[in-house]
Amino acid sequence: MNLLLLFDTDFQTATGVRLTGRRLEHVRDIHRLQVGDELRVGLLGGGQGTARLLLLERDALELEVNLNAPSPPKLPLTLILALPRPKVLNRVLASATSLGVARIILVNAWKVEKSYWKSPRMEEANLLHQCILGLEQARDTVLPDLQIRRLLRPFVEEELPALIQGTTPLIAHPGSGIPCPRGMTTPVTLAVGPEGGFLPQEVELFGRAGFQAVELGPRVLRVETALAALVSRID
Amino acid sequence: MNLLLLFDTDFQTATGVRLTGRRLEHVRDIHRLQVGDELRVGLLGGGQGTARLLLLERDALELEVNLNAPSPPKLPLTLILALPRPKVLNRVLASATSLGVARIILVNAWKVEKSYWKSPRMEEANLLHQCILGLEQARDTVLPDLQIRRLLRPFVEEELPALIQGTTPLIAHPGSGIPCPRGMTTPVTLAVGPEGGFLPQEVELFGRAGFQAVELGPRVLRVETALAALVSRID
Repeated sequence: MNLLLLFDTDFQTATGVRLTGRRLEHVRDIHRLQVGDELRVGLLGGGQGTARLLLLERDALELEVNLNAPSPPKLPLTLILALPRPKVLNRVLASATSLGVARIILVNAWKVEKSYWKSPRMEEANLLHQCILGLEQARDTVLPDLQIRRLLRPFVEEELPALIQGTTPLIAHPGSGIPCPRGMTTPVTLAVGPEGGFLPQEVELFGRAGFQAVELGPRVLRVETALAALVSRID
Repeated sequence: MNLLLLFDTDFQTATGVRLTGRRLEHVRDIHRLQVGDELRVGLLGGGQGTARLLLLERDALELEVNLNAPSPPKLPLTLILALPRPKVLNRVLASATSLGVARIILVNAWKVEKSYWKSPRMEEANLLHQCILGLEQARDTVLPDLQIRRLLRPFVEEELPALIQGTTPLIAHPGSGIPCPRGMTTPVTLAVGPEGGFLPQEVELFGRAGFQAVELGPRVLRVETALAALVSRID
């Protein structure tokens, strides 16, 4: 946690915050701060700055907050991500958020097992929590726009044409032979498949919607590794 | 597992392989192959190709192997990595291996807790296993050269000057203000710190050895995310 994320509801006065639970424990047990110490804080959806620890008790802490700096800009990047298996989902969401991806759309694909959609990790509270962990990691305060599309074909055929307007649409597909472009200056819409990849028919479906298949090289990477490598290459 | 990695000791004849244990279970339960099916295989330290499943029993499987293709080249990259906490170590090793890092040197740093060095995950069998998982992921057969240096200062002062000969030495340090260079054409030696980063004194120590501090941007990333992003940027 490189930034303690605050919510509007944490404020008791204009600059006074009271925290309990996970954030209290983190400040006390991981940061090991004492009364008088400063730490970096941010307001969800707002600015960031520093806070001074005014009070640290067993059940709560209190902060005096000064928000005077902006958060880092988002990358102009929409990520269309085949739903990863539950064990990987949390890490990928936090990682994509930390990288600054502006919009994440979780979609179905042939190799996404049906059970993934029923995982408790798909509950909204968990999805939000993972994004918040990513913000705290990257010292950001602005959530990505996270959306879910359970059906791939209607999404690609009906929604994507409007979504990709003004962006370069790319689909990561090992074996395409086309290197992923570097240092893009336009916004990008990037589709990333499940473990095992998109089916050829799925790549064609994206292709008909205007997506160019690209790859990082001959190596097949895990989704979380590929995602960071692709975003870094494109950025 | 995108490539089943074989060892010299698996061969019963020049092209005949018998497997038990983890690899048997993977072929049977994850790949769900049947006798007659083909799969992609590679020989540790050697070539790769295909194998046909000749026999599949409860306790063993047998393959007819044909190795006729080379493995992907390694990146000309030496990674000097502050030992991550045990929970992260496995993922980072597999990820760095899958990315094709040629050499990985695990080092100490101020923010590396002493207990990390005593973790069971530091046992040689586990370190090797994580690298093998990375090879299987990336369809590679050549292990990275993995080394361990328990003391940072003598390593940087006495060993690094020779190691970095002919390479561009970079140290990832958020806040340095110097963007990590893109698409390097020279070999690179890249130092990556622990969670919380290297201390300024440690960055200076590397600096005296000739390392340039670079960053990916204003965002602080987890080690595994940063590593993939840095390697992709440099490659």
